[in-house]
Amino acid sequence: MTKPRILLLGTVPPADNPDYALFSRDFEVVPFVPKSMTDFCQKLDTIYNDISAIWMFDFVENTDISYGAELASHFPETLKVWAIAWVGYDFVDGAAFRKKGVILTNTGSATSPQVADLALYHVLASYRGTSVFERSLRDQLNLSEARKILGTKEFSPETGLPVIPVDHRVNYFDYGMAIGGKVLNTPQDSTVGIVGLGAIGKEIAKRLNAIGMYVNYTKRSPLSEEEEKKLGFTVTYHESFEKMIPYCDCIVFCVPHTPSTIHLLNEKTAKILKPGVRIVNVGRGSALDENVLLQCLEDGTISHAGLDVFESEPLVDERLVKRWDITLTPHIGSTTSDNPKHAAKANMADISNIVLHGGKGYNTVN
Amino acid sequence: MTKPRILLLGTVPPADNPDYALFSRDFEVVPFVPKSMTDFCQKLDTIYNDISAIWMFDFVENTDISYGAELASHFPETLKVWAIAWVGYDFVDGAAFRKKGVILTNTGSATSPQVADLALYHVLASYRGTSVFERSLRDQLNLSEARKILGTKEFSPETGLPVIPVDHRVNYFDYGMAIGGKVLNTPQDSTVGIVGLGAIGKEIAKRLNAIGMYVNYTKRSPLSEEEEKKLGFTVTYHESFEKMIPYCDCIVFCVPHTPSTIHLLNEKTAKILKPGVRIVNVGRGSALDENVLLQCLEDGTISHAGLDVFESEPLVDERLVKRWDITLTPHIGSTTSDNPKHAAKANMADISNIVLHGGKGYNTVN
Repeated sequence: MTKPRILLLGTVPPADNPDYALFSRDFEVVPFVPKSMTDFCQKLDTIYNDISAIWMFDFVENTDISYGAELASHFPETLKVWAIAWVGYDFVDGAAFRKKGVILTNTGSATSPQVADLALYHVLASYRGTSVFERSLRDQLNLSEARKILGTKEFSPETGLPVIPVDHRVNYFDYGMAIGGKVLNTPQDSTVGIVGLGAIGKEIAKRLNAIGMYVNYTKRSPLSEEEEKKLGFTVTYHESFEKMIPYCDCIVFCVPHTPSTIHLLNEKTAKILKPGVRIVNVGRGSALDENVLLQCLEDGTISHAGLDVFESEPLVDERLVKRWDITLTPHIGSTTSDNPKHAAKANMADISNIVLHGGKGYNTVN
Repeated sequence: MTKPRILLLGTVPPADNPDYALFSRDFEVVPFVPKSMTDFCQKLDTIYNDISAIWMFDFVENTDISYGAELASHFPETLKVWAIAWVGYDFVDGAAFRKKGVILTNTGSATSPQVADLALYHVLASYRGTSVFERSLRDQLNLSEARKILGTKEFSPETGLPVIPVDHRVNYFDYGMAIGGKVLNTPQDSTVGIVGLGAIGKEIAKRLNAIGMYVNYTKRSPLSEEEEKKLGFTVTYHESFEKMIPYCDCIVFCVPHTPSTIHLLNEKTAKILKPGVRIVNVGRGSALDENVLLQCLEDGTISHAGLDVFESEPLVDERLVKRWDITLTPHIGSTTSDNPKHAAKANMADISNIVLHGGKGYNTVN
C-alpha cells in the first residue's frame, strides 16, 4: 500500500522532532514552496492531485496567494486537512475550506504558555515602566541619572521621553513614583480584565493570578463550573467587553481577528476606561484602534501599553514606536525554539487523526 | 505626658498614609536632613538628644555620613530603633548600632512582591530576548525587518546588536529561534536556581513556579518542613551555590551584600555553568563579577542576563549597557507608588512595637 502524501508548505520537514520518525513511516512528506497563486493551483490540479493533507509549516511570504474559495476550488478530493503550524488562522477562509470537506487545524493550546508568558511580560512592563527605565539607563550609564525620570510630569512630543526639569531632584517620597506623570504601580491587588478566555487566555489568567491580580474576563459564554474548577482560582465573568471595562486597572487582549473583535478599543469604549489603565495586546492588532490608543496615552487615560501585535502589520505606526510609555515586541508571542516542536507535534497528531483514523481533529478551527 | 520624638530623615513625613494619623498621635515626628557627618553628630548631641527612634525615610545622598560606630557613639540613650524605609541595609554597621542598644529594622517582606515581580520580568526577558527585539522594532518600524535578527549567528562587538548577513531570509524553522547565536526558550519545564530564599526569594519562587519552572534554591539552611508546606509547591535544596550551579538553566540572585555573597559568579564558578544559562540579579551588584559575566555573555556560556543591580553603583559599566543580550533596569526593584505605603507601614509598626511596647521589632536585621 502506498503511503498517503502530505504537502508540506516549506523547505525542510521537522526531521529532528521526536515524533517525526513514526510520522514519516506513515506518510510521504513532500516539501513545496508555491511561487504564486497560479503555480499553487496548477500543481494541485496535476502533480499534487492525490494529497491527503496540506501542512502549512512556513508562512509563504511575498506571493499573491489567497487562501480562500478560489484556492479551495483546486483542492483534490483526497484532501482532508489543512494544518497550520501556529495559532492565527484569520488569513484563511475556513468556511470555504470546510465546504470542500477540508478540516482546518491550528496548534490549539500547544503554544499557549509561550504567548501567555509574553502577555505576563507586557503586564509587568506596563506596570513598572521598564522600557523607559531601560532606555534611560542605556543613555545615562548611571543609576542616579537614569532615575531622574522619576517624578517627571510629562513626556516630550519630540523625543517620546520624560521631560526632566532643570535641577530636578529625585527623591522617592517627595516626587512620587511616576514617570512623565504616569504612576508606577504593583500589579498585585489590582484588577485585570482578559478579553477572550480561550486556551491562551486561561494560561494568561493563571500567571496573572499568581502575581496577585483579580482576574475578570469576557467571552461569548462564561466558563462552565467544571472549567472554572479546573482553573483552580476565582475569576469573574462579564457579559460584554463594555460591561467589564470600568472595573479594569489593566486589560489584556488575546482575541483572534474576527468581525466582532475589530476595534474593541474605540472612541466610545475609551470614554469608560478607568483612568491610568494599562492595555496589553498579544492577540491581533485589529482589536485596538491605534489612533484612539495614542490619544489615550497622550492624555493619560491609558498609563502604559504593551503591544506584540499591530493594526497594519508588518508595518508599525511610527507614532507608537516613538513613545516610551509603550513596551514593544515584534509579534513574538510564540517565537521560542521549543515552540516549533510543540507546534509540529500538534499538526502531526491532527493529520494522523484525520487522515489515518477518520477523526475530526484535535485542534479544528473551521 | 510628652510624646516620644522620632527623627525622620527626610523632608516630608508620609501624611497621606492611612496609618500615619494614629502614629502621629503617639509620636512627635521631626523631619531632618543632616548636611554632613559633623552636623548629624552635633544635632544628636544637642537638640535631638532625646529622640526614641530614627526613621530613615529618604536616603541622604551626597554627604560624608557614615553609618557606623562613630555615628553610633553620638546616639542618645533614649534611642531604641533605627528604621529603614527599604530593604537593603548593607550601608549600616548593624553590630555597632546593636552595641549601643539600637535595633535596626528594614521593611521586611513588605516590598517583596515588587522585587519579585521585577525578577520575574527579568527572567521572562532573558528567555525571550525582549530587549533586542524591542530595539530592533524601534529601529525598523516593520515586523518583518525587525524579526530579521532571528537566525543570526553573532552579535557585533561595535553595536552590541545581532549581525544580519546580506540576503538573510527569516524563516521560523530553517533558521531556528536564535538571535546572534543565542537560543530563545520557554521558561516552562526548565530549572531555575534561586540564590537566597528569604522573603523576596520565596515570592520569586512562587512566580517562577507559576510559569512552570522547577525551583531549586540554596541558602544557609534548608526550609523547614512547615515553611516548605506553606510555600505550596515542591522546591529542591542545595547545600551550596557551587553544588546547585550545574542543574540550572537560569540562576536568580537575590542575596544581600555580605562578605560571603561577593562574586558568587566568578572565574571558578563560571566554569561549571550550564551552557546557555540565564542570569538574573535583583539583589546586590556585588554578587556577580561583571568581568566574568561579560566574558560568559561573549562566549555564549551565558545566553542572556537581566540586571537591576550593578557592581559599581551608581555607575554602570559601559560594556554592559552596550550589550543587547542584557536587559537592564536602574535598581527599581521596589520603585512603585504603592511601595512607600507598605514600607512606611512596616516602619511605623516596628517603631511602635519597640518604643511603645518594648518589643523586639517585626523586621529586625541586626
